[in-house]
Amino acid sequence: MTSWQLSAKEEMVEKFLDAASRGDADQVSSLLSHAPSLLNQAGHSGWTALMLAARNGHRQVAEALLSHGCDKWSVNSSGQTAYDIAGFWGHRHIAALLGGAERGGDLVPRENYFGRETLDRLSAKRTDSPWLEAKKTHPGSVFLLFSDLSPMVSGSREDGALELCRLAYDAVKDLLQKDDVLVVFLGVDRSKVAPGEDPPAWFAVSTDEDAAALLQRCPGRKCSFPKSARRDLLALSEEDAGVLAPARSLLAWHARYGFCATCGSATQVEEGGHKRSCRNAACKSLQGVHNTCYPRVDPVVIMLVVHPDGNQCLLGRKNVFPKGMFSCLAGFVEPGETLEAAVRREVEEESGVKAGAVQYVACQPWPMPSQLMIGCLAVAVTTDITVDHNEIEDARWFPRQQVIEALLRESSQGLFLPPKQTIAHQLIRHWIGTSANL
Amino acid sequence: MTSWQLSAKEEMVEKFLDAASRGDADQVSSLLSHAPSLLNQAGHSGWTALMLAARNGHRQVAEALLSHGCDKWSVNSSGQTAYDIAGFWGHRHIAALLGGAERGGDLVPRENYFGRETLDRLSAKRTDSPWLEAKKTHPGSVFLLFSDLSPMVSGSREDGALELCRLAYDAVKDLLQKDDVLVVFLGVDRSKVAPGEDPPAWFAVSTDEDAAALLQRCPGRKCSFPKSARRDLLALSEEDAGVLAPARSLLAWHARYGFCATCGSATQVEEGGHKRSCRNAACKSLQGVHNTCYPRVDPVVIMLVVHPDGNQCLLGRKNVFPKGMFSCLAGFVEPGETLEAAVRREVEEESGVKAGAVQYVACQPWPMPSQLMIGCLAVAVTTDITVDHNEIEDARWFPRQQVIEALLRESSQGLFLPPKQTIAHQLIRHWIGTSANL
Repeated sequence: MTSWQLSAKEEMVEKFLDAASRGDADQVSSLLSHAPSLLNQAGHSGWTALMLAARNGHRQVAEALLSHGCDKWSVNSSGQTAYDIAGFWGHRHIAALLGGAERGGDLVPRENYFGRETLDRLSAKRTDSPWLEAKKTHPGSVFLLFSDLSPMVSGSREDGALELCRLAYDAVKDLLQKDDVLVVFLGVDRSKVAPGEDPPAWFAVSTDEDAAALLQRCPGRKCSFPKSARRDLLALSEEDAGVLAPARSLLAWHARYGFCATCGSATQVEEGGHKRSCRNAACKSLQGVHNTCYPRVDPVVIMLVVHPDGNQCLLGRKNVFPKGMFSCLAGFVEPGETLEAAVRREVEEESGVKAGAVQYVACQPWPMPSQLMIGCLAVAVTTDITVDHNEIEDARWFPRQQVIEALLRESSQGLFLPPKQTIAHQLIRHWIGTSANL
Repeated sequence: MTSWQLSAKEEMVEKFLDAASRGDADQVSSLLSHAPSLLNQAGHSGWTALMLAARNGHRQVAEALLSHGCDKWSVNSSGQTAYDIAGFWGHRHIAALLGGAERGGDLVPRENYFGRETLDRLSAKRTDSPWLEAKKTHPGSVFLLFSDLSPMVSGSREDGALELCRLAYDAVKDLLQKDDVLVVFLGVDRSKVAPGEDPPAWFAVSTDEDAAALLQRCPGRKCSFPKSARRDLLALSEEDAGVLAPARSLLAWHARYGFCATCGSATQVEEGGHKRSCRNAACKSLQGVHNTCYPRVDPVVIMLVVHPDGNQCLLGRKNVFPKGMFSCLAGFVEPGETLEAAVRREVEEESGVKAGAVQYVACQPWPMPSQLMIGCLAVAVTTDITVDHNEIEDARWFPRQQVIEALLRESSQGLFLPPKQTIAHQLIRHWIGTSANL
């Protein structure tokens, strides 16, 4: 970007923020239609258009911004959200629009990345073989291609988000007839269908065929199979992330669970790819219902531990993290353990800090391969840190203001936080948001 | 029990409740020392001693009752807890004793059955083979014997609770040397040790030897291996239930996961019984870390759905339930699904009712074989019921008063609820408690 382009962009942001501040809803909408990327831009001290509208009580502007999907959880350099600002300046109609009645619960997004139920799973249809077979050859069905657990994506969307390539039956017909191809029924998309019409069924298709050859099936578009799951899969739209999460978890399960854990025999795929049954008729896994036949979901606790003084939080880093990045502590829930006990155990094991009260905040599916991240706040009752270097590289107390600066991506003595698609980021925002300095 | 005994008992209860009502802490304690079973007895309209103390502001009596471990979550026939009563009559000191500052969170027990962390898991020691081997032959170590996933228990406790038989090294020495015996390290018991002393290590020992012969190893006590897990394992003390939950889940995992799901080879036990690794050196499960090697924990959502009018709740029954029993709806969380989405999906699938807001309340490990029951309240946004008979037998809206009567086990038009050891029961109590009719 040249300096001329840069200053043109800065000028545009200034104009946009000014329109929001003045309550000029028409200009706000007009600017957004030309430059959607203005939506969440922040100006002086991290104030966004939504915060300025909230400050001055401009409901129409706030509504316009929200209808464009603006980020209502951003904080300014004082750690205030638009909701905090609306409340402080007495604009109850804006606060109601932004938060609703209850404070705590509403400051955290109701939906995390990977958490949207884009499709209706329609689990009752998994055992309806005639229905499933008809959908597998239906011209309206949607097929997502996976190679080595990586989905075929294209970068053709205007907002820059990656999109799952939606292939039609004709483009995968030959593949579906092969023995070594796995097809998993994901559900139906009820959102884009006229009343009375049958909603299209979606399938994930996993194959070992040459990836370059597979890409030819989606001509005329810049398609690829992302190599880095942890980076590229966070670039999908919210809708597609919600489709990818169950699809990738199920395919990863098939990739690692081809044999019966009870007797070691081969298994066969059933129920549209949601069950694997042992082929050995004498196996005891076939007597009664056993979890051996069903996909795993591994519950993980992830927690932001708050210092007893309320003004610092405990963050840790693994040696695989990029330099300067710290995140929430986390760990797998063990058999016979509550979420709250798992939080206290993991915090003490990794950092030596003892935690007292634990509060559930929100959760997030994490399909690498199939975790359920259960996000909590915990209050520390001791403060001395002893890092277990087998688990993490470092753990430290970070002051609130430094965390706010890191959230704003301003200079922050080298600290940076995980991206907003992660529940770790959302937990940190939640803590900042629930203790705004007003 | 003869009628003379019955009336003597009734007289004793009356005396006890009268002492609590008058604030006679000495008599309350004295009666309890003679007859511990008085503690949670209720008189007229379901009022317990704690409620009477709360009604009249007798802090010493309330403290004495709590120190004996009385049930502070009981409700009377108006659905009021002792906390509600103390608050209504303005006895803040009692309310503070019973509830603390925040209402909602405190009305649900902080600890459900199977949820107590009786032992410190000391997971770092699982990879310390010399330490583990030394503990396995240590005279202070505690060994719990299991036959067909059933623990050896005795009924010798005064309060009638079943107790896990704690065997010493000498009683199991020969067993431990056999190849087909599985030994799982459970943790250490820090509660009963003088400072400076090493806490005793606990192990679960699973063997296929004849159960009758195994019982001989615990002479002089009425020992048994309960046949009905779902009934008898709910009769343990809270401490022992907290030991049993991880032990039984781990043994059940070993019983069903002896083979590598990735390649079908045999596996070997590692890390004190907390890991199974494939014996096939070429298996891809040995490259990197995979969940195939670790015990499963299956997250399940269990939810009380509240009618939009706030005065009814949705309960369902399976055909295997005893006659008249209804409980909360529940179901497994699927891959790529949030807890909140799982609640809404399961409620709609089983009953046809659509749920809106979902709130996490508490959770409970359930070791049959290894569920994590995640308890939520949900608010219905539709009310018509369409039962999916593949999943449940019936589902109905029950009025609040009928549920209160069922909690009190009075006549209730045939409705009865799951026992208090279940999180279903606690969720129902929580709902009653958060909407007391004062």
